Amino acid sequence: MADRVSRFPVVELDDLPDDLRERVGAIAEKSGFVPNIFRGLGHRPRELRAFLDYHDALMDSDDGLSKAERELVVVATSGANHCTYCVVAHGAILRLRTKDPELADHVGINPFGAELSGRHRAIVDLALALAVDSASFTDDDVDAAREAGLSDDEIWDVGAITALFAASNRLAHLTALRPNPEFFTMGRSG
Amino acid sequence: MADRVSRFPVVELDDLPDDLRERVGAIAEKSGFVPNIFRGLGHRPRELRAFLDYHDALMDSDDGLSKAERELVVVATSGANHCTYCVVAHGAILRLRTKDPELADHVGINPFGAELSGRHRAIVDLALALAVDSASFTDDDVDAAREAGLSDDEIWDVGAITALFAASNRLAHLTALRPNPEFFTMGRSG
Amino acid sequence: MADRVSRFPVVELDDLPDDLRERVGAIAEKSGFVPNIFRGLGHRPRELRAFLDYHDALMDSDDGLSKAERELVVVATSGANHCTYCVVAHGAILRLRTKDPELADHVGINPFGAELSGRHRAIVDLALALAVDSASFTDDDVDAAREAGLSDDEIWDVGAITALFAASNRLAHLTALRPNPEFFTMGRSG
Amino acid sequence: MADRVSRFPVVELDDLPDDLRERVGAIAEKSGFVPNIFRGLGHRPRELRAFLDYHDALMDSDDGLSKAERELVVVATSGANHCTYCVVAHGAILRLRTKDPELADHVGINPFGAELSGRHRAIVDLALALAVDSASFTDDDVDAAREAGLSDDEIWDVGAITALFAASNRLAHLTALRPNPEFFTMGRSG
Amino acid sequence: MADRVSRFPVVELDDLPDDLRERVGAIAEKSGFVPNIFRGLGHRPRELRAFLDYHDALMDSDDGLSKAERELVVVATSGANHCTYCVVAHGAILRLRTKDPELADHVGINPFGAELSGRHRAIVDLALALAVDSASFTDDDVDAAREAGLSDDEIWDVGAITALFAASNRLAHLTALRPNPEFFTMGRSG
Amino acid sequence: MADRVSRFPVVELDDLPDDLRERVGAIAEKSGFVPNIFRGLGHRPRELRAFLDYHDALMDSDDGLSKAERELVVVATSGANHCTYCVVAHGAILRLRTKDPELADHVGINPFGAELSGRHRAIVDLALALAVDSASFTDDDVDAAREAGLSDDEIWDVGAITALFAASNRLAHLTALRPNPEFFTMGRSG
Repeated sequence: MADRVSRFPVVELDDLPDDLRERVGAIAEKSGFVPNIFRGLGHRPRELRAFLDYHDALMDSDDGLSKAERELVVVATSGANHCTYCVVAHGAILRLRTKDPELADHVGINPFGAELSGRHRAIVDLALALAVDSASFTDDDVDAAREAGLSDDEIWDVGAITALFAASNRLAHLTALRPNPEFFTMGRSG
Repeated sequence: MADRVSRFPVVELDDLPDDLRERVGAIAEKSGFVPNIFRGLGHRPRELRAFLDYHDALMDSDDGLSKAERELVVVATSGANHCTYCVVAHGAILRLRTKDPELADHVGINPFGAELSGRHRAIVDLALALAVDSASFTDDDVDAAREAGLSDDEIWDVGAITALFAASNRLAHLTALRPNPEFFTMGRSG
Repeated sequence: MADRVSRFPVVELDDLPDDLRERVGAIAEKSGFVPNIFRGLGHRPRELRAFLDYHDALMDSDDGLSKAERELVVVATSGANHCTYCVVAHGAILRLRTKDPELADHVGINPFGAELSGRHRAIVDLALALAVDSASFTDDDVDAAREAGLSDDEIWDVGAITALFAASNRLAHLTALRPNPEFFTMGRSG
Repeated sequence: MADRVSRFPVVELDDLPDDLRERVGAIAEKSGFVPNIFRGLGHRPRELRAFLDYHDALMDSDDGLSKAERELVVVATSGANHCTYCVVAHGAILRLRTKDPELADHVGINPFGAELSGRHRAIVDLALALAVDSASFTDDDVDAAREAGLSDDEIWDVGAITALFAASNRLAHLTALRPNPEFFTMGRSG
Repeated sequence: MADRVSRFPVVELDDLPDDLRERVGAIAEKSGFVPNIFRGLGHRPRELRAFLDYHDALMDSDDGLSKAERELVVVATSGANHCTYCVVAHGAILRLRTKDPELADHVGINPFGAELSGRHRAIVDLALALAVDSASFTDDDVDAAREAGLSDDEIWDVGAITALFAASNRLAHLTALRPNPEFFTMGRSG
Repeated sequence: MADRVSRFPVVELDDLPDDLRERVGAIAEKSGFVPNIFRGLGHRPRELRAFLDYHDALMDSDDGLSKAERELVVVATSGANHCTYCVVAHGAILRLRTKDPELADHVGINPFGAELSGRHRAIVDLALALAVDSASFTDDDVDAAREAGLSDDEIWDVGAITALFAASNRLAHLTALRPNPEFFTMGRSG
C-alpha cells in the first residue's frame, strides 16, 4: 500500500500559524501524536481554523448528547460513507469514551443493522436518514427521534454532527487521508 | 404549503450576538433582506460563526476558481442532493455572478447531464464524484480534472466547496429551511 | 453553454403538416412562442401527433384532479428524473395555474421532501412511487392514496400522467432539449 | 395468486368505441385473443387511442431498425423495469419475430449482461442508458451508438421506443396488469 | 448470440470423478439432460461437491417449507439478481413443482411487486430483504415473517436458501452460464 | 448492546456431530476459541458441513492466489456488504497472514477507494464487480483482470470466493452473528 498521508501537501506542526500550532499542539500532546487530519488540512490554515471551530462547537460538549453519543454519530455516518480516516480515528475515540472495545467496529462496519440500545439506535437512525438520502428527510424522521426520547436540541446535535462529518468524510476522500497508525489500536483492550 | 422558515426556532438579526449581527447585517444590507440560513442557524451562534468562517474562506475568493465557478459547484452539488434552499439561494447568486439567467436552472435541475463548457463540465464532474458516491473517489477523478486543466489548488477548492455544501445541504434538510422569496426571482432578467 | 435546441434536427412551425401546424400554432399564439418540445418532436410528425393526443387526454381536464394538480404531478416526477425541459416548462405552467411563485421550485428541486398540503403530498407520493421504483409499486401505494381521499379516477390520472412524463422526460433527455428562455421567468411575479 | 387482470375495471372488446373495437379486434383476430393491455386501458378510450397511435408509429416499421430489434428494445427496457406484462407479452412477440426461443428470456431477465451480437448489444446499451438513469444520458451515449453503426434515425427509434415503454411499463405497474396466458408459451418451440 | 455454455472450460459427465459422475448422472437421467451448472462447475470437482451437498441439504426437503416454496425463494432472489441461468432453470422446476405455468415468470421478472398469496408474499419479502440490501436486515424482517406465520425453522430455510443462491447467482454471472434449452419450455403446458 | 451471539439457537462444540466436533475442534485449538460462525451454523450440521467443505476448497490453498489474497477478497466483499462478522473475523486473519496491521481496516471500511498495489486493486475490483452489481458483470471485467496479470484460475478463485462470501455474509446478517471478542484485537500489533 502507498504510504502517503494525503493526495495534497501536508503541513507539519511547526509550520502552522501560531494559533493553529498551539491548538493542534494541545491535541497532539494529549494524543501523543498529531492526527493526520490537521497535517492534511493545514496547508489551508483558514479552512482548518473554521473546521476546528465547527468541530469544537459540536463535539466538545456533554450538554444533551454525551460526548460518546456524539462520536457514535460520527462513526455511524462515516461508516455509511465508507470513510476510512473518520471510522478509524473516531472509532478510536469512541472506544476511549465508551470503554467498549467492540461498539465502534459494529457501528462503523454496519451502521444500518448493528444491534444497539434503543436510544443509540434512534440516534443512529436519525443520523443515517440525513447522511444517506437527505432529500427524503421529513418530519417523520424528526418525530421518530422525538418518540424515542430525543429532545429538539439533541436532534439538532445529531443532525449538525452528521452534516459536519458529511463534509469531513468528503475532505478525507478528496485527500485520500490516511489514519495515523496509533488510531488502529487505541482503546482496543476495553 | 406550510410557511414556516425552519423546523427549529429562528433568530432575528437583532437577537444575534454583536459580531454576528454586524456580519449578517452587512450581508442583509447588500441583499436587501436577511437570508434565511442565518435566521435558521442563528440559535446556535457558535456554529453559525464557524459556518460563516468556513464559507467565507472558500467562497469569497477569485484566486484560481472564479466566484461564479465556486457558485457553480454549490448549485450542482446541491441539485444532486435535492437541496431546495441551496439551489434557490445559490442559483440566484450564480445568475448574478454570470449574468446568465438559465445556467443555474440547468445545473440545479440536472447537474449530471447539463451541457456545459469543457472547464465547467470538468468542475461539475469532479464535484459530483465527491458529492454523490464519495467512497469511490480515486486518483482517476483527480487525474481527469488535471487533464481538463484544473490546477491542484482549484481541485482542492472544488472538493472543499463540495464538502462544505454536503454539510450545508444537510443542515437545510434538517431544518426544512425555506428560501427567502427574493431568491426565486433575483437575476432572472439576464 | 451550447445553444442548440436539440441533439436532433428541429422543425419550425411552418414546416409542420397542416394539422400539427394549426394545433401547435394555437398553443404558440397563446404562449407567445413555440415551445421547443414541438420543434424537437416535429421531425417525426406521427409521433408528435400521438404525443399531443396523449397529452391532451390527460392534461386538459379539470375532472377530478385540477389542472394545477396535474401539473404538480409533471413537475414532481420530472424533478425526480432531473428533466430540465419539463421542470422548467411545466414549472412555468404550474406557477401560472396556482399563482404560487414558489411551489414549482420546491417540488421540482426536491419532490421527495417538499412540504406540501396533505392532498398534494398524497398526489406527489403516489406519483413518485410509480416514477422512481415502479417495480415495487403495490396495493399499499394505491391504498395510501385512497386513504388520503383520492378517488380511483384520480389515482389513475396521477399514474397515467406519471407514465406519460416518464416517456416525455426520456424524450427530452434523448434530445437534450432546451427549454425556451420564456419559461424560466413566466409566473414568477406571483 | 390473484387472478384479476387489472387493479382497475377492464373493458371487453364489445364495449369499446367503434374505432377501437375495430382496431383492437383486428389485433385479436391475428393473435387469437384480446391482449389484456387493451382491456386494461379500454376504460379510458381516448388514452388508449393515443397509446395505440404512438405504439404503431414506432413499432410497425422496418425502416432502419427491424421489427425484431424494436421488440428487443421493449423487452430489454421492460426487463430493467421489472415489468411482467411487457416482458411476457413482448417476449412472445420477440420470439415470433426472431424465431429464437431463448433470446427474449436472456434479455428480459438480464438486459445488463446478456451476451448479444455487437449491434444488438449497442441497441440494448443505448436503451438502458435512457431507461435506467436517464439524467446521466449524454453525447457519449449517442456517440457510442453511432460508433457501433447505428444511424441517427435508428438512435431516435431506440430512444423513442424506450421512452414509450417507460410509460407502458408504468401503466402496467399502475394497473398490476396480468399477461394473457397465451403469451407465456408463444414461440417457445423455436 | 454466442453459444458458449460458460466463460470457463466445461466438463462432460464422463470426465467427472466417480462420485460426481454418479450423482450428476442420476440427475441427468431424471431430467433427460445434464444441467449446465454441473458442466460449468465440474472443472473444480471439490467445489462442485460442496455446492451439491449444500444444495441438497436445503432444497431436498419438505420439512416446513415445501419443495415448491424453496424453489420460489430461488426464483425470486435470482430474479432480483438478474441471474438468467437460475431464473430459467429453477423457474422450470418451480413450474413442475407447482403445476402453475405462470408463477415462475411473475416472480422471476418482478419479485418485488408480484401478486402472491399471503404466505408466498411473506416468504418472498423475507428472501428479498436478505438478497438485496442485507446490511439493513433486522429483527423487523424476522418479526414480519413470524407474524405471517413462518416458523423459525422456515425463516432459517428462506434465509439459507437466499444465501446459497446469492452464491449460485454470482457463480452463474462469473461464468456467463447458459441455461440448457430444455429448461425454457419445461412445465409450460401447466 | 445485546450480547446474544445469534438470532437463532447456538450449538456448543460438545453438541456437534463427531466429524464436525473434530473438525471445528481443530480450528478452535489453533485459534484458542470456537469462532461463533460454527456455533451459529451448528444447529444445522448438514449445512455447516457443506459450508466448511466449500470454504476449505477455496480458502486453504496457496495455488495461484495466496492465502492472504483470498482473505483480501473476503474482507473487501464483506466490507461492501457491511457484514460485521466477516469483516472482523477475516480482517483478523488477513492481519495475521499479511503481518500488516492496517490493510484489513482500509479494505473492510472502504473497499471501493482503498489505495492498494496494482495486483491487489485488480483482485478487489474484480471481486466488487461480482459482489455488488453482479448482473452487469461482463467480459470487460474478466478482461481487466487478465490485463492486470491474473490467470484464469485466479479469476475463478476471486469469483468463487466472492460468491461463497455473498452467501456467508447473508448467513451472518440472517443470524445477526456476533464476532468473538478475540477477533477484534488479533494481529493488531503488526
